[in-house]
Amino acid sequence: MDLSLLGAAAAASALAEGRISSEELVAACLARVEADEERVRAWAFIDPEHALRQARFADSRRREGKALGPLHGLPVGVKDIIDTADMPTENGTVLHAGRAPSADAALVSMLRAAGAIIMGKTVTTELATYSPGKTRNPHNPEHTPGGSSSGSAAAVAARMVPLAIGTQTNGSVIRPAAYCGVVGYKPSFGLISRHWVLKQSRPLDQIGVIARSVEDAALLAEQLIGFDQNDPDTRALSRPLLRETAMREAPVPPTLAFVKTPMWKLADAQCQEAFAGLAARLGERVEEVKLPAVFKDAWKWHQTIMEADLARNYEPEYRRGRDQLSEALRGQIERGRRVRALEYNNALDRIPALNGTLNQLFERGYDAILTPATAGTAPRGLASTG
Amino acid sequence: MDLSLLGAAAAASALAEGRISSEELVAACLARVEADEERVRAWAFIDPEHALRQARFADSRRREGKALGPLHGLPVGVKDIIDTADMPTENGTVLHAGRAPSADAALVSMLRAAGAIIMGKTVTTELATYSPGKTRNPHNPEHTPGGSSSGSAAAVAARMVPLAIGTQTNGSVIRPAAYCGVVGYKPSFGLISRHWVLKQSRPLDQIGVIARSVEDAALLAEQLIGFDQNDPDTRALSRPLLRETAMREAPVPPTLAFVKTPMWKLADAQCQEAFAGLAARLGERVEEVKLPAVFKDAWKWHQTIMEADLARNYEPEYRRGRDQLSEALRGQIERGRRVRALEYNNALDRIPALNGTLNQLFERGYDAILTPATAGTAPRGLASTG
Repeated sequence: MDLSLLGAAAAASALAEGRISSEELVAACLARVEADEERVRAWAFIDPEHALRQARFADSRRREGKALGPLHGLPVGVKDIIDTADMPTENGTVLHAGRAPSADAALVSMLRAAGAIIMGKTVTTELATYSPGKTRNPHNPEHTPGGSSSGSAAAVAARMVPLAIGTQTNGSVIRPAAYCGVVGYKPSFGLISRHWVLKQSRPLDQIGVIARSVEDAALLAEQLIGFDQNDPDTRALSRPLLRETAMREAPVPPTLAFVKTPMWKLADAQCQEAFAGLAARLGERVEEVKLPAVFKDAWKWHQTIMEADLARNYEPEYRRGRDQLSEALRGQIERGRRVRALEYNNALDRIPALNGTLNQLFERGYDAILTPATAGTAPRGLASTG
Repeated sequence: MDLSLLGAAAAASALAEGRISSEELVAACLARVEADEERVRAWAFIDPEHALRQARFADSRRREGKALGPLHGLPVGVKDIIDTADMPTENGTVLHAGRAPSADAALVSMLRAAGAIIMGKTVTTELATYSPGKTRNPHNPEHTPGGSSSGSAAAVAARMVPLAIGTQTNGSVIRPAAYCGVVGYKPSFGLISRHWVLKQSRPLDQIGVIARSVEDAALLAEQLIGFDQNDPDTRALSRPLLRETAMREAPVPPTLAFVKTPMWKLADAQCQEAFAGLAARLGERVEEVKLPAVFKDAWKWHQTIMEADLARNYEPEYRRGRDQLSEALRGQIERGRRVRALEYNNALDRIPALNGTLNQLFERGYDAILTPATAGTAPRGLASTG
C-alpha cells in the first residue's frame, strides 16, 4: 500500500501497532514530493534526509518504548512564517532570504514534544498577505491554491504530508483548504500560541491546521491548544479533547445554522446553488439564520485593523526595502499608515459585540455554522490567491 | 480630642478597641467639612446624614461582633469619576450633571466589603483631565490643589477624611497629593480594578490612594488590590500585605535610587535644592542613578497614547456637547483625533521596555526611587492645576 494515502489518525494507529514505521511513512510522503513537487511547488524548504533522520530517531525511540505522544512519527508541514531552529524561515519575502531563526516557535516545540516529524517549510504568500508564492493547485496547476497558507493546503491535498500548519489573519487557512479540497480548521482566537510566528496583526493573527479529514485535523489541533505565557492572548483552558469530541461526543445529527453572510452575494451561482442544495438535502438539521445588521461593515473594520497593524508590524521591512515589496503590499502598508488611531480603536471595540452575537448562535442550540469558505472553486490563474 | 486628627490606622485601632465609635469619627470629620468646605471646596457631593447612617450601621454591626474588615467604620472620600450607586457621579462635566449610576464601581464594592464609610464624592477636574474644578489648596486657598484628584487630596489634607481614592492617567494622584502635603500612592499598573470608573485611557488609567501617612495609604491600598474579571488589565496576584511590608518588613534603612528624570530641568530651584539636600542628608543610603536615553521621549509617547485615547473614549461627549467642554479639553481631543494608528501603536510598543528598565533598578538592589513629584510647591492661582 502507498502509505501516503493514509490519513493522520490511521497512520498513528498503524505506527502505534508497529504495522508501519515512521521511516516508511515519511519515505512514502517524500516519494510524493519527488513525484509532484515540480508541478505543485508546495515547499519553501524540504531536506529529505533531515526528515528521514527524524523519522528513524522516532522509530528508535518507539522501539525503546519511548514514544513521545499522539503525533509520534507523523510528518507535518509547517508554514514558512513559523520559526524553526533547524530550517530557514523566510516569511515569503526576499527581504528575509536566508533567515535562520535560533529557536523554534512555541507550536513547533509542541509538535516535537508530541513526537511529530517536521517535514519541511511550506510556501507562504509574501509576508502572509496577498501576493502569491510559487505554489499551484494540485487539482489543476493552472489554478491558484489560495493563500496565504498555500503550500500547507497544497502539500496535504497532494498527499506529500497528512498534516500541515497554517495561519490566518483574513481567511488564510480556510480559503486555501477549500480551494485544495482539504479540511481547514482555525480554532477560536487565543487557543494556539503565536510565539515566534511572524506577527501581522495581534488581534487577528491565528494558527490553524490542515488535514484530509475532520478527525485528522482534530488530532493535530488538540496537540497545539494551550496557554503560553509568551503569547498574551492565549488562554488557560483545560485542553479540550477535540478528536474525541469530534469522533464520539458530537451530537448526531448536529443542528446547523445556515448563515448567508453579507458576502453571500459575492459567491458565484454554482456555490450558492451547491450550498442551498446541501442545506435542502440536510433537511430539518439545518435552519437558515440571519446575522444582525452590524455584520454588514465587519469586513471594513477588519481591513482597518489589519492594514494599520501591517503598517506597524512591517515597518522595518517597509523602511529597509519597500522597493522589494510587492506593489499590493506596499499599497496596503501605505493605506495602513494613514489609518487614524480613532478609527483603529473604534474597529477594535467592535470585536466583542461581533463575537458575542456568534456565541449566541451556539447558545441557541446550533452545533456549527454552515457557510461558504470562498466565493466558489479555486479560480483559474496564478496572479492572485482568490 | 478632635478625632479628625487621627490617622486611619490609629482610628482603626481605636475603633477596634471600642475607644471610639464610627459615628464619633465621622461626626468629627463632618465638623471639619462644616468648618472649612466653603473655603476648600473639596466635595462634589456630600450628604452628612447619609454618612452618619452608614457609621451608625457600622457601629451596630460591630456591637454584634460583625465588623466587616480592616476599614470598618473609617470614612473614605471617593473621586467623582468613580461610580457609586447611592450618590451621583458627575465626572466633573456639566454634560453628566445629575448622572446617577445604578451600581458601585468594583473598588467601591471592595471598600464597602472592608467596612468603609463612603463619606462623599470628591471634586475632579473636567473628565479627569486638566481643567480645574472648584477645589482650592487647604494650605492657601489662592493656590491650586493640583489635579485631577483635587478634592481627594484637599479633603485628606484638610482632615475632612483620613483616606481618599484618586485616579491618575498622567500624575493625577501624585501631583495633588504633593501640592496638598499628603501621601499619594499609585500602585503598579493592573493592581486595582477600574471597573465602572470613567475610562480615559486603558493603558494609562490607574487607581491610587491618598492618606496622611505611608502606613495609612498602605492600609487602604491593600484592601483594593486584586484581580477583577471586569478589568482585563488586573492581575491575579496573591494580595500583598502592603501595610505589614511597609511597617515591618521594609529594609531599614532602605537604599534609594535618586533619579533626575528628563523633566528635572523643569523643577524650580527650590525643589532641585531641596531634593539635592535630602539626598545629601540621607548619605550613603542614596545613589544617583541615570535613566537611559530612551526615557527622554517618554512624555511624548505618553501624550500620544493619552490624547488618542481621550479622542476615542470621550467621543460621545465630543459629539453631543463639544461646546460644553473646556477649550483645553476640546484641543486635546482634536489633537487626539489626528493621531495615526501607527504612532499610537508605536508608542504603546515602548511601554514594556520602559517598564523593564525601571524593574532593573529594583533588581539592582534599590528599594525605591527618589524623585520630585512636581516641579515645586503648589503654584499660586486657580486657573490651572499646575
